[in-house]
Amino acid sequence: MTIQPNRPSVGQLQPSLIRQLANGALGRDDVLPLWFGEPDVPTAHFIRDVAKASLDNGNTFYQANAGHPLLRTALKDYMNCLYATDFVEDNIIITTSGMAAVALATQCVVAEGDHIVTHSPTWPNLPSTPQIMGADLTCVPLRPKDGYWHLDIEELLAACTSKTRALLINSPSNPTGWMLNDAEQQHILDFCRAHDIWLIADEVYSRIVYDRPHAPSFADKITDDDKVLIVNSFSKTWAMTGWRLGWLTIPKSMVTTFEMLVEYNFACVFAPIQLAGVVAVNEGESFVQESVARYKVALDFVTDQLEDLPRVSFPKPRAAFYAFFGVDGVDDSFAFAQEILAKTGVGLAPGIAFGTDGEGYLRLCFASDVERLEQAFDRLKPMLT
Amino acid sequence: MTIQPNRPSVGQLQPSLIRQLANGALGRDDVLPLWFGEPDVPTAHFIRDVAKASLDNGNTFYQANAGHPLLRTALKDYMNCLYATDFVEDNIIITTSGMAAVALATQCVVAEGDHIVTHSPTWPNLPSTPQIMGADLTCVPLRPKDGYWHLDIEELLAACTSKTRALLINSPSNPTGWMLNDAEQQHILDFCRAHDIWLIADEVYSRIVYDRPHAPSFADKITDDDKVLIVNSFSKTWAMTGWRLGWLTIPKSMVTTFEMLVEYNFACVFAPIQLAGVVAVNEGESFVQESVARYKVALDFVTDQLEDLPRVSFPKPRAAFYAFFGVDGVDDSFAFAQEILAKTGVGLAPGIAFGTDGEGYLRLCFASDVERLEQAFDRLKPMLT
Repeated sequence: MTIQPNRPSVGQLQPSLIRQLANGALGRDDVLPLWFGEPDVPTAHFIRDVAKASLDNGNTFYQANAGHPLLRTALKDYMNCLYATDFVEDNIIITTSGMAAVALATQCVVAEGDHIVTHSPTWPNLPSTPQIMGADLTCVPLRPKDGYWHLDIEELLAACTSKTRALLINSPSNPTGWMLNDAEQQHILDFCRAHDIWLIADEVYSRIVYDRPHAPSFADKITDDDKVLIVNSFSKTWAMTGWRLGWLTIPKSMVTTFEMLVEYNFACVFAPIQLAGVVAVNEGESFVQESVARYKVALDFVTDQLEDLPRVSFPKPRAAFYAFFGVDGVDDSFAFAQEILAKTGVGLAPGIAFGTDGEGYLRLCFASDVERLEQAFDRLKPMLT
Repeated sequence: MTIQPNRPSVGQLQPSLIRQLANGALGRDDVLPLWFGEPDVPTAHFIRDVAKASLDNGNTFYQANAGHPLLRTALKDYMNCLYATDFVEDNIIITTSGMAAVALATQCVVAEGDHIVTHSPTWPNLPSTPQIMGADLTCVPLRPKDGYWHLDIEELLAACTSKTRALLINSPSNPTGWMLNDAEQQHILDFCRAHDIWLIADEVYSRIVYDRPHAPSFADKITDDDKVLIVNSFSKTWAMTGWRLGWLTIPKSMVTTFEMLVEYNFACVFAPIQLAGVVAVNEGESFVQESVARYKVALDFVTDQLEDLPRVSFPKPRAAFYAFFGVDGVDDSFAFAQEILAKTGVGLAPGIAFGTDGEGYLRLCFASDVERLEQAFDRLKPMLT
């Protein structure tokens, strides 16, 4: 007997197509996995060492809901340094991943039947979480324009109705590498203020940017009166994907609400992980810059490769570490990704995994040494030619 | 300006009265904190050492949603050994704490407007999570009877209506130490089967029991066709409160549903934590037995102390590590706990924190060396006499 969940929205969730594809490669040792959004190196030793020392010190007890005071301080200083803001500790809530930050923000913002507007193609987790909470979603498509991905902001705002309670924005975007500029952010924020609409801004790729030190952020445009929740994570910036450490930037009057949401979802984050986060933030700046420089080399290599292939169209990413490219003649990206995997052993994510607006595309994570990408393209080229 | 959450049920959440009390003690170094449910020792070295080795090995990447295969295997073997069941890996889902297991189970089971029945006094997190998901809750009171806490099972079942979708049972119970027997569990399960009602069973105190190796469990009464979700955790059994590691036992046909719920809430658990869990399960049995023996000494001491106090009524716990006792003349347990804290420096949890059925009571966590409890009672006695 197959048991169905009682909550209808959970019954309607779709399993990840990337995971489904990857499961088909279990047991194969010749696969070059470029499907997940994960750097190819383990977390730096100076970060791991702090977690080990914290374990030695017996830091195995419950922690404060809002997060370890040292980490909240480190993060408000980090934000204030990056954005010239004046956040205090109560603007910062530590979460067990960026994903958990999205989940808590959604629980705060989405009531049953609320209308939410977002853009696509998008990381599938972003629409799924509001869907669990009962949201009715509209996705406004990103489109290629002048060699980059583009979102028509007027089209985004026109999708809002009187039932719209929140905008869900992921800039820089996974999978496209699209990025809002400051004027567009200000325009969106003004609209949200005028119409009393919440804004959940997923900025986890804010530091993986190729032409400036950080992506434009809503952080330096908001006040403590704005209904804006900014999601961030240690995963991408400090190559800490597995650690499950993220944070929310919130209006400080909401700190008690978020302490309760943390308590009633996972209660707190392991102290050794949080203390590792402190050293990542305080001493990780050169690591971040070296990583971005390495990803830039990889991006340049991938761009050269893809631009050589006449069947491929590749709107360039301004940020993040994905090449999201279309292949002429492909109208079933899942089947095509399966075929690529079977014939070449290269693991790519099918565009359809990011919504119907991603159909015909493939996502390749280039957070990798060029040697590995060379191998991948040697195998891929016959399939893309 | 104070910003309220948009989701009405989140706006109605109440902050923890225990945390509120504990916050009042910040900066005092003379406090004996017996308010939280946490053993007084750090996690054992043999468990911490595995996490450190895993950090050395660079296990810092994403993990499978359902959990690390080694931990799922260790846990199904552990359950099968304890309960003579025949669970397989797909019956086990790893979660980032018992709390997270409750949250995922609730997302699966509770739809907006569903009626849920539970018992009280109870750990406040248990009713709060379904409340976030839109549940309408009925709490059936536990009452002292013949020197122990007692739940009238007929009264519990009679609280179910045609709108009831789930029972939420915490046995052994926090804060009371009340425990269902096998016949009562079978009766509840038969009722749930007959009325197509889900059962969420929080069994995190299943190993902290004083007259047998483990508490009666729904695990050895269910089949894979039962809508039963069993919550468990590493926190209490292996003194791993801060690690945030728990698991759900589910019908194996629901594995894809729960993989998605994990993905859309926190994605996975850090590998070094999961591998520490493997060694806890596989090599921690003598630690568990020594801990329970230590808590039994503490329980006997606390019982002697409380029974000497004429104003105190103390229905004895069959399990868990809390003394939940009434004090004659106390009708505002929060104010009384504040007064005790101010005058003696002993931190006790007020009964009202566990619902109105807990008013007039105090909770003392005795997962502690007797020397510490002696100090606490030396200070407490004048207040309780």
